[in-house]
Amino acid sequence: MKPIGELIKQKPWIGWLTFFGTIIVVFFLGLLASSIIERRAEAVFAYTPQVEYDQMEPRIEIWGMNYPREYQTYLKTADTTFRSKYNGAAMVDMLEKAPELVILWAGYAFSIDYNQGRGHMHAIDDVRNTLRTGSPMTPEEGPQPGTCWTCKSPDVPRMMNQIGIAEFYSSTLAKLGPEIVNPIGCADCHNATTQALQISRPGLIEAFQRQGKDINKATHQEMRSLVCAQCHVEYYFKGDGKYLTLPWDKGFTVEEMEAYYDEYAFADWTHKLSRAPMIKAQHPDYELYRFGIHYDRGVSCADCHMPYKSEGGVKFTNHHIQSPLNNIENSCKVCHREETDELIRNVYQRQDAIYQTRTLLEKALAKAHIEAKFAWDKGATEKQMAPVLKLIRAAQWRWDYMAASHGASFHAPVESSRVVSLGLEKAQEARVEIARILASLGYTQPVPMPDISTKAKAQAYIGLDMKELRKKKAGFLEKIVPEWIRIAKEREAQYPINKL
Amino acid sequence: MKPIGELIKQKPWIGWLTFFGTIIVVFFLGLLASSIIERRAEAVFAYTPQVEYDQMEPRIEIWGMNYPREYQTYLKTADTTFRSKYNGAAMVDMLEKAPELVILWAGYAFSIDYNQGRGHMHAIDDVRNTLRTGSPMTPEEGPQPGTCWTCKSPDVPRMMNQIGIAEFYSSTLAKLGPEIVNPIGCADCHNATTQALQISRPGLIEAFQRQGKDINKATHQEMRSLVCAQCHVEYYFKGDGKYLTLPWDKGFTVEEMEAYYDEYAFADWTHKLSRAPMIKAQHPDYELYRFGIHYDRGVSCADCHMPYKSEGGVKFTNHHIQSPLNNIENSCKVCHREETDELIRNVYQRQDAIYQTRTLLEKALAKAHIEAKFAWDKGATEKQMAPVLKLIRAAQWRWDYMAASHGASFHAPVESSRVVSLGLEKAQEARVEIARILASLGYTQPVPMPDISTKAKAQAYIGLDMKELRKKKAGFLEKIVPEWIRIAKEREAQYPINKL
Repeated sequence: MKPIGELIKQKPWIGWLTFFGTIIVVFFLGLLASSIIERRAEAVFAYTPQVEYDQMEPRIEIWGMNYPREYQTYLKTADTTFRSKYNGAAMVDMLEKAPELVILWAGYAFSIDYNQGRGHMHAIDDVRNTLRTGSPMTPEEGPQPGTCWTCKSPDVPRMMNQIGIAEFYSSTLAKLGPEIVNPIGCADCHNATTQALQISRPGLIEAFQRQGKDINKATHQEMRSLVCAQCHVEYYFKGDGKYLTLPWDKGFTVEEMEAYYDEYAFADWTHKLSRAPMIKAQHPDYELYRFGIHYDRGVSCADCHMPYKSEGGVKFTNHHIQSPLNNIENSCKVCHREETDELIRNVYQRQDAIYQTRTLLEKALAKAHIEAKFAWDKGATEKQMAPVLKLIRAAQWRWDYMAASHGASFHAPVESSRVVSLGLEKAQEARVEIARILASLGYTQPVPMPDISTKAKAQAYIGLDMKELRKKKAGFLEKIVPEWIRIAKEREAQYPINKL
Repeated sequence: MKPIGELIKQKPWIGWLTFFGTIIVVFFLGLLASSIIERRAEAVFAYTPQVEYDQMEPRIEIWGMNYPREYQTYLKTADTTFRSKYNGAAMVDMLEKAPELVILWAGYAFSIDYNQGRGHMHAIDDVRNTLRTGSPMTPEEGPQPGTCWTCKSPDVPRMMNQIGIAEFYSSTLAKLGPEIVNPIGCADCHNATTQALQISRPGLIEAFQRQGKDINKATHQEMRSLVCAQCHVEYYFKGDGKYLTLPWDKGFTVEEMEAYYDEYAFADWTHKLSRAPMIKAQHPDYELYRFGIHYDRGVSCADCHMPYKSEGGVKFTNHHIQSPLNNIENSCKVCHREETDELIRNVYQRQDAIYQTRTLLEKALAKAHIEAKFAWDKGATEKQMAPVLKLIRAAQWRWDYMAASHGASFHAPVESSRVVSLGLEKAQEARVEIARILASLGYTQPVPMPDISTKAKAQAYIGLDMKELRKKKAGFLEKIVPEWIRIAKEREAQYPINKL
């Protein structure tokens, strides 16, 4: 073989071929490099701050000027359609769907109004609109305390900072009405300077402290669940100051939280029919998720509910928080290689199983309350009824712990099922006991059941004047809410927005 | 640069280096090839048939001459130690562990004796030894039919071939005693000529036919579960001929099988205390496994219970059938990358949850039976008791469907939990009803509970003379069983074994 120099000397076209070939290759390399640089530039551009604001800025549209992708996807939480077999669409009237719930919550605000929740963007509207918050025509009026606002708005940390935490909770809901106007937003979870995830709500921080843990030592991956756990947890309003408290001191199981409440002899309300001292579960989403396989495998809330998204050269967290069933390709399929239909079927299978037993428990509990009332009416004594009331309290706490927890039958199907089973056993045990009490009072027939086949009938049975409640609400929404909004707009118009 | 020929002319050591370098590389390539060929030879040697036998050969030691690895690992099923949190060790006395079971099975053989099962190699011994099979001193004596042998031995297809299937089932257990002597073995699942998996038991084939399916069209992967499903299923002894039948015609769920049994008004026995017409679940292992995620993902029984093993150059199916918990590295970890302790914890978490509710159901059922007896004793009428008996039958069928199924709380935790919950609801509903009946009979106190805190006390309560039963069994084991073994040995000594 000849050296290349000698070869070119003999056949000059080889040299030209090499020369022009190289030119072409280098040209395309140049194009590629240009494309890479352009995408980098796009990314840098995307994250160039446009305005300056501080941690107390509640408006997402201001934060959104600097983080348009996160902002724009977050706006989509206003979209209320979602795929769910059992919860129906957002805002489905759950009392219409299962009128037994009216009985279960008799004497408590939930028996008046309870709809399937919807996206974060509706948080403020839904608090104003629900009949549960009543119709306060003056700032001093109830029925609800300021604590009800706690999870609803980035105006909450702003106001807690301004007036103090205890003062915030012990205020009325109405008094804070003109202040709490922006639905859940950026400042609830993010640091205004670094965008790092951070906890803005005292309840979670204090619960960690009482457990001897420092929430500041949580990893980033833990924070991707803990920012959600600021609100998606079980909590109660402690004492006269209605101080929002997480009942985690003994642990996260249904029994450990019950032990916590029992130690305080805490009751949210006394049941109107059975007279049992009841606990209303909020939504122990984070707690139940901890008993599931996804938690065990280190999967955070954001991994499934806010999976990463790519747009142009930018990868970012999709802030359209939603059911992963709406977005299986980007959530489940990051780990699971099965077909979409198969994955949905797997979820529904869990929901089917637990929904079936949960419904049985609902019906058993409704019967237990009605039968207990019947026993009282027949002259049962406090002493006779004491064990019954204890069983009803425990059974309904188990039902509510599971039923109120969003996605429980998927997050932790086995634990959910266990909890419902235990509730079922206790509800039925209560009914055995009532049958004996009734017998001792000379009544040996089945207790006649009222017609509670619709929400309206069930509400009439427990003595609610729904027409009056709705009329008052309409007056409140017409007169008070627009005034709150007007005051808030005036205030916000004076906030400085510094263009950078 | 100079051509290589010119280079070597100038520096001859380059040529020599290339030459010797090549020699060394080729030498090691030769070694590698030799090693590969040797391993192949080993594999060929391992599978060279040594003897010839046909499908009716029941002895595993004969099959084992041709397949020593499969044979030797299968022998390990005699090892009775296994890792389980709830079932204790093999042969643990389950009636001692949960004396409520004695009540649940009152009037039925299981109330006499029920131990945790052990490996396949013990199948024959355990049938002879259990008090459930009684002490037949002549071939004509009961209490059990030939059907009881069906799952226990490769002598079964041999005898079915010889005397006919219906004749086999309708025979007494004792009459077949000298024939059925080899514990579960090769011929139960394998073709003697090709070693392919094949179904030897008519029950499964017939169930497929009635469902309009052809079991011969099953894939190899399906067969890796179906050979197990020959026995690890729910079945019953149909009619006077005690024909072994799988109740699959309506489906695999607890409700669908119940509908099948209800249609026939089938009862395994009438309960001695409650007088309810009871169904005894066998072990719906395959059925419940079908509701689990491993089935959904195409994992077969053999994948976890008989994972592949490598020895020398040979990869073979480990025939030491056992709990995957004993062999997590080769079973779970083929797919799951978690630490062993974490995987065990995940299994125990499922078992814990379901064991808790199952135990509640056991206790509720025991109470229901005892309370029903009390109601009968107080003069309850057939008409009053009819709904109670129906509830008890349904509740215990749900309990047994789940409790009798090996590994149900792992194979299908959500379905298991659903089934137990439904049982719990029905058992408690029965108790509510009994309380009302008792009240109508003038009895309003809780029903006094007998002391059933130990197996002995529970068995005394239901009127069993255990001393007598044990004495008879000892006589049977001393006189009859050795005779069965002697006859079998003489017969087998005459089987031809052809050396190849």
